[in-house]
Amino acid sequence: MLAASRGWRHEGLTIGLVPTMGALHAGHMSLVERACRENSRVVVSIFVNPIQFGPNEDLARYPSSPERDLGLLQQAGVAAIYAPSAAVMYPPQAATRVRVSGVAETLEGAFRPGHFEGVATVVAKLLSAAEPDAAYFGQKDAQQVAVVKRLAQDLDTGVKIIVCRTVREPDGLALSSRNAYLGPDQRQSASCLSFALDRAARAYKAGDRDLKELRRGILEILGAEPLAKIEYLELVDPDTFSPPGTLAVMAVWIGNTRLIDNADLAQPFPG
Amino acid sequence: MLAASRGWRHEGLTIGLVPTMGALHAGHMSLVERACRENSRVVVSIFVNPIQFGPNEDLARYPSSPERDLGLLQQAGVAAIYAPSAAVMYPPQAATRVRVSGVAETLEGAFRPGHFEGVATVVAKLLSAAEPDAAYFGQKDAQQVAVVKRLAQDLDTGVKIIVCRTVREPDGLALSSRNAYLGPDQRQSASCLSFALDRAARAYKAGDRDLKELRRGILEILGAEPLAKIEYLELVDPDTFSPPGTLAVMAVWIGNTRLIDNADLAQPFPG
Repeated sequence: MLAASRGWRHEGLTIGLVPTMGALHAGHMSLVERACRENSRVVVSIFVNPIQFGPNEDLARYPSSPERDLGLLQQAGVAAIYAPSAAVMYPPQAATRVRVSGVAETLEGAFRPGHFEGVATVVAKLLSAAEPDAAYFGQKDAQQVAVVKRLAQDLDTGVKIIVCRTVREPDGLALSSRNAYLGPDQRQSASCLSFALDRAARAYKAGDRDLKELRRGILEILGAEPLAKIEYLELVDPDTFSPPGTLAVMAVWIGNTRLIDNADLAQPFPG
Repeated sequence: MLAASRGWRHEGLTIGLVPTMGALHAGHMSLVERACRENSRVVVSIFVNPIQFGPNEDLARYPSSPERDLGLLQQAGVAAIYAPSAAVMYPPQAATRVRVSGVAETLEGAFRPGHFEGVATVVAKLLSAAEPDAAYFGQKDAQQVAVVKRLAQDLDTGVKIIVCRTVREPDGLALSSRNAYLGPDQRQSASCLSFALDRAARAYKAGDRDLKELRRGILEILGAEPLAKIEYLELVDPDTFSPPGTLAVMAVWIGNTRLIDNADLAQPFPG
C-alpha cells in the first residue's frame, strides 16, 4: 500500500483514503464519490477491525459483501482497495495502541470500552500505510469523527479529515451496515431515532433553546417506541462530546441491534 | 517539515531522520554521519520532549547547546534541522498518546512511569512529520530501540529503524548528554558501568554461561564503587526486555545523575 501511495505521490498525484469495514452502502459510496472528485487517486480500505469490537459485540456476525463491494468500487473508479487480513494488521507480537483522551472517553467511549482505542489505532495505521492527503468519514459516526480529527492532528499526520453528511433512507433512518440485522418490525421502529432528531431540530428552529427540554422531547419520542431501548441520549459540544451543546447524540437498541444517530439541532435537519 | 520531506520524495530522494534532544555529542554525530552516508537528505530533529520526563526528573536542567549543535550539523551536511517548540508539539487541546505494552513496561518503563509513552508518542509524531525512509537510534538506549522498533512496525510506518553502536569515552563511559552533570570524582567513578559490562563480557567469552553468576559479578563491581547506587541491573532478552537473556542492562545513580548502559554479553565488548 505504502509503495503504491508513494509511487503516486512521486508522480505528483493527490491521494484520498476512505476507511471502511466493507458491507458498503450508499453512505460509504457518498464518501467514495467525494474522494474521487477531490483526489487523483482514491484508496478504499476494507477491514473489519477486531480491536474496536468489545467481547460481547457483533464482530463474528458483522455483515460482509466482498464481491458486491468490489463491483461498486470498480464502478466508482477507485485506484486501490486495501484489504489487509487481521493477522497482518495485528500479528501476535504487535503491542502498540493509540489512545485519545477526553473526547474519546464519553458516550460511545464509556459504553464501548476500548472501542475508540481500537478505532484510533487502526486509523493511525491506515493513515501511515496510505499516506493520503485527505481521509473521508461519515458524520453518522460523529464521535469517531471527533476522535479521528484529534489524532490526525496530534500525530502530525498532515492528513485533512473530510466529514460527509449522513445518508438516510426515505423515512430518515441513517444508513448503516448494521441495519441489515433489523427484522421488518424492527426496521419500521428504527425510524424513531431520526424522527426524534427531526422533531428536536424543528423545535430548536422554532425558538426552543432549553437544552433540557429539547432532550426531554427526544426522550419522549424514543420512549413511545415499544421496541426501542435507549442506551444514551445527550446534547453535547461537538468537539468535546460533553454537555452542554446542541449536538444530539444517541445510541438506541432495537432488539439485539444497536443503532446510533446524531444531529446538530442548530443546523437544518437532515443536514 | 512534511512539505519539505514530500518535496524531496517527489524528486526521488531518500530521507534519513535522526531524532535527538540536542546537546549533541559524538554519539549523536555517529548517527548523523551514518544517516548522511545512507540517504540523500538527512533531517535531524532537536526536541527536548517534555512528556518523556517524570515530574521529578531533569527536564528543567537538561543540557542545551543550540549554537554548537547547529554548527556540528551544518558541518555534517544535514538538509534540515526540525526543532519544533513544545507548544507546537503539545498544544493544550492535544489528547493523543501512543502506548507500547510488553517491552515498554519493564526496567526503564517500570522505573520511569510514562517515559516510554512519551518516547513512543514523540517518535510517532516525528516519523509522521518527516516521513523518512530510515530513522537512526543509538544502542545506548537499548530499551528505547526495542520500543521504537515495535511501534514503527505496529503503526505501519514503513520506516527502517537503524541502530548504531554506543560511542564511548576512552575509559569506556558511554557518551550521554547527561554526563555533563558529573563532577570530576563522579566522572571517574562513572566508568564502573562499562568496566563491569566489559568484565562480564570477558567472563562470558571465557565460557561462563551462568546468567545469575554473571549478574552477580557485575553487581560486585558496581557495589565496590562508593559513589554508585544501582537502580536496576538485569540480564534480559533483547526483544522482550525480560529475563533471562544475555543483554545486560543497568541504570546506576552517580550522585544526582542517572546513567544507563548495556551490553550483549554474547557479543564482543565494546560492540
